[in-house]
Formats: sequence, structure tokens, C-alpha cells
Amino acid sequence: MKPLVVTMGDALGIGPEIIVAAFARGELDGAVVVGDVEVLRRAGAPLIARIDAPADLPQVPPGCLPVIVPPALPAGLAALPWGVVRAEAGAAAALCIEHAVRCVQRGEAAAVVTAPVHKEALAAAGVPYPGHTEMLQALATPPGAAPPPVRMMLANDELRVVLVTIHLSVRRALDAITPEAVLDTLRIAHRSLARTLGHAPRIAVAGLNPHAGEGGLFGDEEAAVIAPAIAVARAEGVDASGPYAPDTVFMRARRGAFDVVVAMLHDHGLIPVKYLGVEHGVNVTLGLPFVRTSPDHGTAFDIAGRGLADPSSLIAAAALARRLSAD
Amino acid sequence: MKPLVVTMGDALGIGPEIIVAAFARGELDGAVVVGDVEVLRRAGAPLIARIDAPADLPQVPPGCLPVIVPPALPAGLAALPWGVVRAEAGAAAALCIEHAVRCVQRGEAAAVVTAPVHKEALAAAGVPYPGHTEMLQALATPPGAAPPPVRMMLANDELRVVLVTIHLSVRRALDAITPEAVLDTLRIAHRSLARTLGHAPRIAVAGLNPHAGEGGLFGDEEAAVIAPAIAVARAEGVDASGPYAPDTVFMRARRGAFDVVVAMLHDHGLIPVKYLGVEHGVNVTLGLPFVRTSPDHGTAFDIAGRGLADPSSLIAAAALARRLSAD
Repeated sequence: MKPLVVTMGDALGIGPEIIVAAFARGELDGAVVVGDVEVLRRAGAPLIARIDAPADLPQVPPGCLPVIVPPALPAGLAALPWGVVRAEAGAAAALCIEHAVRCVQRGEAAAVVTAPVHKEALAAAGVPYPGHTEMLQALATPPGAAPPPVRMMLANDELRVVLVTIHLSVRRALDAITPEAVLDTLRIAHRSLARTLGHAPRIAVAGLNPHAGEGGLFGDEEAAVIAPAIAVARAEGVDASGPYAPDTVFMRARRGAFDVVVAMLHDHGLIPVKYLGVEHGVNVTLGLPFVRTSPDHGTAFDIAGRGLADPSSLIAAAALARRLSAD
Repeated sequence: MKPLVVTMGDALGIGPEIIVAAFARGELDGAVVVGDVEVLRRAGAPLIARIDAPADLPQVPPGCLPVIVPPALPAGLAALPWGVVRAEAGAAAALCIEHAVRCVQRGEAAAVVTAPVHKEALAAAGVPYPGHTEMLQALATPPGAAPPPVRMMLANDELRVVLVTIHLSVRRALDAITPEAVLDTLRIAHRSLARTLGHAPRIAVAGLNPHAGEGGLFGDEEAAVIAPAIAVARAEGVDASGPYAPDTVFMRARRGAFDVVVAMLHDHGLIPVKYLGVEHGVNVTLGLPFVRTSPDHGTAFDIAGRGLADPSSLIAAAALARRLSAD
């Protein structure tokens, strides 16, 4: 089995320390880290084996954290204070993601697991993507080709959610909720989950507006945009239904009525996934030509470097990446 | 102690049957129902005592459901099929609400508990309010006066949420999220909960946009609208903080970090309140000159009349109304 590649994330957030903590618990066996040696040492790694490629993993002695350092990584990251937005940290995080993706694309690794990045640090570094999802999409696009439509799925033991829009203001998201965007989401969710579950997933589509528009009194997007996309998907054999009132559909999915909920807005979907705790949530990018998972939390600058961060979500992300890439 | 008044709600939804079920369990002692006798009989009430006013309650024999029938209630409601939108049912629901409010305003009753109405039925009847909250606000406004600002609070054992906007499309809600609307919400939440809790509530303000705007990358409402309102409220002694990322603030409140979360959008707030089940959620209208609570669910037309509806939320609403009006 090929190794997983785990990216370090923002060097000044909790990414490095949750990687070190997960490794110390034996939960990153068969994985290599793409990152900065001094940063991982500062995060608590007692022994580090610097390697050139995932194929070197078998040569790493037990108990040593295997680390690949991407070319041109900015120096001096470990001298910066924890928990601050720095362009160097944003640039380093982006380099690690790119290097990890190239490892998977060259067939050297099975899947990518990404530690959290900070969107302001990426922006400060001039990285032209607001987050992981958009950057991975660009990296997966062959030169001259159109980028593959991708979607963010959040999953925990109780609930799976796939998002039509993500890193946009609500105002801009309203314009991005088109019949095509909803239909793409339904197709991607259907295809990806059919593979994982072994059967066509029962997809619930949440509306955009209160009470799913209440028959048109509170908005027309349900009738004009969402329902037509559901109709096309159903004609293609996708088991999609809705649009349902956003405020109860997640409860119904949690109780087993559906395998996954498609949500129009970032926080419609993420509020219920995170409500019982972010520790076990995993973020999966659907639609890429490779498997990518990540923990369902951010850089947590407020606690970075203090030994308080919980590695559970990263551990769950690594476990899910192994399961998805073993298919 | 004065009686509670409980409105029947939409005659073709689950309102009548949850009232009858709650009464049968002894959970509506000291309450009178405002509604239609035949509708309540069809919903399973074996014995009904028609009375003229709440003051007649002591004359009602044990085991008889006390019912006040408002003047001009449409006839024949009990002959209509369950679970359909009908103008007659919308008109009747509105009459019951108005009559109940007048009872409280005349000092005959302690508080109003409302069973669910259907917004399309209200609209079909030409009722100029999209829901209870707006109608109660209008009924509480003296002639010639400006309506009091009111807000919807949803509460269960784990979480309290107060909403800045409610029955509007998301697109229209964006325009309704003004510094004044946020500040009014903070003041109302502070004043109402300080009375209930006996101390200034710790109010968390959820942002509007993903990641609370991520420092302006995903929208400027946090900096332009929400933060200034928080600053004014804090200067007035309100213990408000934020704006926080919507996707984690409800989890934090559930774990005890805050007494209440102020949410910008209907479903930001209602998704987490309902996620673990609508059975125990209660809706409270804050800012009215009287106490009003209601169950945290709708008319459930799909199961109306089938004996499946759960009266727990109505029971919780009645209990909370008693507690709030006993102060």
C-alpha cells in the first residue's frame, strides 16, 4: 500500500502539533509529512527523518517522523511567533500542498491529508486561492483543460453534508447557486458516495430560504433553481429529493432518513456537522482525480503552540483517506 | 394564578391533536384553549366545556377541555380534510390568535401559547402577516404607535438562539441585517434574558458569512454592520462578543461558553436548535409586552390527523410560558 502524504498546514497554527500528536499515538503509520523540519521539531517531534520521497518511507526507523521538505520552502518559519497571520507561513503551506499533490499525481502516494491553512495567510502570500478546495481543483486541472467541478463534503459518524457553495460571502453565494451548480453537486455526491456506500445514496437537498421558501413567500430559488436541478438529476437515476426546509433536514438525515444532505450555503451545512463537536468531523473533497481529506477545523491560532490542540479530527481524516484510497 | 391561553393553530395541521394529547396527559392544567369545538373533538377530545372567558375556568369539570370560541369563527372547519392549505383554516387561526392576545391584554390570562399555523393558509386568507411573530407584534402595537421591536428566540435544554431576521428570503434578509437591527436584537436579548437568568446573559454574536467573513475576504457585513452594533451594545453594558464564525459558535454555546447566540439568518439559528430533535424546542417571542411561547415545529400536514404527532414541544412551551409569566 502506498503512503499517505500529510501536509503541515500553516506553520503558525495547530497543524504541526496535531500531526506530531497523531504520529505519537501511532495513528500516522504509513504516512509521510510534507513540511518544515524545524517547525515540526518546535511542535514537539523528538525524532525526525528527512526523506526525499514517499518511497523512502520503509527506510525510516520506527519512532522517527518521516518528513519531505519541498524545494524553496521559506527559511526561519520556526522562529516566528505562534498564532499570527504571516505571508511566509501562507507561502509555505501552499508549497507543501502542491508538493503533496504532485506526489499523488506521480503515483508515489495514495492520498493527500491536509492540515489546516489560514486563508488570510494564503492571501498575504499572494496565493490565488481562498482555500484548499480551490487550490486542489487547480492543481488537478491539466494545462488548457477546464477545471473539474469539485465539492466539499463534511462527514462525521452521524451526518454527511455536501456543499453547493463554500468560500464566498452569502451575497456572492446567492449568485453562485445556479441550476448547473446544484446539478453538478448532485452528480458529484451521487458518484462519489455510490462508490463508498456500494449503493446509490439517498440524497436530501436542503433549500436556501427559510421553510424552503414557504411556497414562494420567502424566495423563489427553490422553485426556479433547486427543484429543476433535482428533476434533471432524478431523470439521470440520482436518488435526490427536496428541496426540504433547511432547519429540519439535517435532523432527519442524522436519524437515518437520508445518506447525505446537499446544502446551498457553507454554514447551513457546517453548523450541524460541527454542532456536536469538531473532533471527529472530516472534510473530503469530492470530484478530484485523487483522494483528499482534512480535519474539520481551522488553524486555531488562539491555542496554537500551547499543547491544547486535539488531533482526533486529523486522525479521523487519515483513517478515512486510507479507506477511500483502498477501494 | 391566571390561566394560560392556548391557540388552536391551523385546524388542518397537528395543532388540535397535540393540544388534546397534552391535555390528556395533564400538562395543560390551568390553561384554556381558544379554538373550534368540532375541530378539537375531531382531534380526539372526548369532553369539551365551552366557556366565554378565561375566568370561567374554575367552573369547568375535571377532564373537560376548556374551549373559548372566538366570535365569527368560520363554520365547517372540522369537515375539511386534514393536511391541506385552506383559507378558512388560515382565517380561523388568525382569529384565535387575536382573541387570545386580547385576553392577555385585558388581564384575563397570564400568557399566550400558540399552536402551529401554516403560512400559506394565512396568506390565502389575506392575513397580512407571514407568521405569528409579525402578527403578535402588530397586535401589541397601540393605535398610532410604532410597533415594538420583537425577536424570535428558540430554546431547548442545551441552546438558546435569538434571530435578527426570520421570515424573509435570504436575499431580502441581507438587506434587513442593519446595525440598528443587530443592536435592537442585542438589547432585546439582554433585557429579556437578564430577567429570566437573574444576571446579564453572555451573548455570542454569530457572523453572517463563512468564517465570519475571514477578515473581509468573504464579505464585509461583519466589519461594517455587526461589529459596530456589538461595540454600541457593549458600551451600554451588554455582555456581547463576536462576530464569531457561524459554524462553530453554536457548538461553543452548547458546551456552556455563552448563554445565548444571536444569529443573522433564520436557518443559521434554527438548524442547531432543531438538530437533536424538535420535540423539546420552544419558540419565545422577546420584546412583546406579554409572554408568548410556542412549539418549535410547524403544522406537519404530512402526519396531521393520524395520531402520530408528539405533544412534547407544546408541553415544553406551556411550561416555559408559566415560568416566564410567574416572574
